[in-house]
Amino acid sequence: MNLEALPAFVDRLANAASDSIMPFFRARVEVENKKASGFDPVTAADRQAEAAMRQLIEAGFPDHGIVGEEYGSDRADADFVWVLDPIDGTRAFITGLPVWGTLIGLLHNGRPIFGMMAQPFTGERYAGDGERAWYTGPGGARDISTRPCPELAEAALFTTSPHLFSEEERIAYERVEKTARMGRYGVDCYAYCMVGSGQADIVVEAGLQSYDIVALIPVVEGAGGRVTTWDGGSAASGGRIAASGDERLHEQLLETLAG
Amino acid sequence: MNLEALPAFVDRLANAASDSIMPFFRARVEVENKKASGFDPVTAADRQAEAAMRQLIEAGFPDHGIVGEEYGSDRADADFVWVLDPIDGTRAFITGLPVWGTLIGLLHNGRPIFGMMAQPFTGERYAGDGERAWYTGPGGARDISTRPCPELAEAALFTTSPHLFSEEERIAYERVEKTARMGRYGVDCYAYCMVGSGQADIVVEAGLQSYDIVALIPVVEGAGGRVTTWDGGSAASGGRIAASGDERLHEQLLETLAG
Repeated sequence: MNLEALPAFVDRLANAASDSIMPFFRARVEVENKKASGFDPVTAADRQAEAAMRQLIEAGFPDHGIVGEEYGSDRADADFVWVLDPIDGTRAFITGLPVWGTLIGLLHNGRPIFGMMAQPFTGERYAGDGERAWYTGPGGARDISTRPCPELAEAALFTTSPHLFSEEERIAYERVEKTARMGRYGVDCYAYCMVGSGQADIVVEAGLQSYDIVALIPVVEGAGGRVTTWDGGSAASGGRIAASGDERLHEQLLETLAG
Repeated sequence: MNLEALPAFVDRLANAASDSIMPFFRARVEVENKKASGFDPVTAADRQAEAAMRQLIEAGFPDHGIVGEEYGSDRADADFVWVLDPIDGTRAFITGLPVWGTLIGLLHNGRPIFGMMAQPFTGERYAGDGERAWYTGPGGARDISTRPCPELAEAALFTTSPHLFSEEERIAYERVEKTARMGRYGVDCYAYCMVGSGQADIVVEAGLQSYDIVALIPVVEGAGGRVTTWDGGSAASGGRIAASGDERLHEQLLETLAG
């Protein structure tokens, strides 16, 4: 495929998702429970946005695969596979907070080669191709880069919620939180973009699906950071994920998680 | 004073704060530690914004008192006292997240009669006078109201961080969190505005200063909700604070906190 046309096509996907989602943001919609056990909300917005993106991909690239949070996998063994999460940060979305995002990632032979996080209420988009990363939104367009932070003791750390860890994971996480300069809860995809744009240093999470992370890897790595599993492997399949803005910090982070 | 001119004057204060703060938002500024122990950041933005607001108040209403986070109290025994927090949610601010806000409140004989939360990156303002509350920002201007939610088991709950509670407070908070439908961490003033606009139902916090809460009381109560201390007293001095969108829920919330 023509990789130069990618950013414009991904912008079209993000526009379609935004058109589907924004009528529901801060509207008093009913929230369904996806699973009988536990709390996992889905909105009509989520489904409409993924359907709209799938339609554009199928029309433009009929041989590409698609993996999405709402509608599962099609042609997941194709060379190029799109990985979609229309609303990452559903809890933020249903409580009115503008820190959710639409995640659009592209894998080539299993490797993330392009990704975008789009936040339509603020108008922000963070995108990257693993070599470069950039922002568009209020204040204009610019390349983004992570900030130097070689020491965990100086790092600002994000995680979605300490309740999302298993007991073993929580103990490992707390070793990091106790050493870091500050920890902050309650941001999902947005946290990775703050690391990518040099506003924070670390994200630690567990239990992620591929569609929670694939889009964010080319952004953070294009900005100069690293995203791996806790044991240093590829993050593209999700699981326990660690992201750092500074490669030196990443080694220390993985060691601290390992204990 | 002419109460009809209040909203326009408070908008001027918010504009002045925004002009002082926004050049620093997402800039790579150095963060100072206000206290040797613990982490309590202040930025130049915070101080410049409060100074700008104080100057406007002193020029327009020289007999009014002012209480601010950065520069303390002047004429705190005046009939009218302004209560200012230029950047509520400093941790959000220094990590690039658009969920901090400028808080501007006005007390008359100790009672909050007007308040505003302004978020200049998103362009949102939430204001209220205890009888009415309103929003301006993306999507236009509109009155806001809380949503019905009579049962704690159905409520969406916010707190800034479980780490900000004493042991006794944390136990009380956890009773609420276990009963509520969902809990979310990491939002300060923004949480009260989400309750005021019917996106969430409860905020529970402790250790607040008057400048953390005075501006938010007329917003939540103007939208139909209630803000008190955990034991049902006036919230205007800060301390342990509970806010609910639904008065019926508020009773159940205070009972659950009391155990």
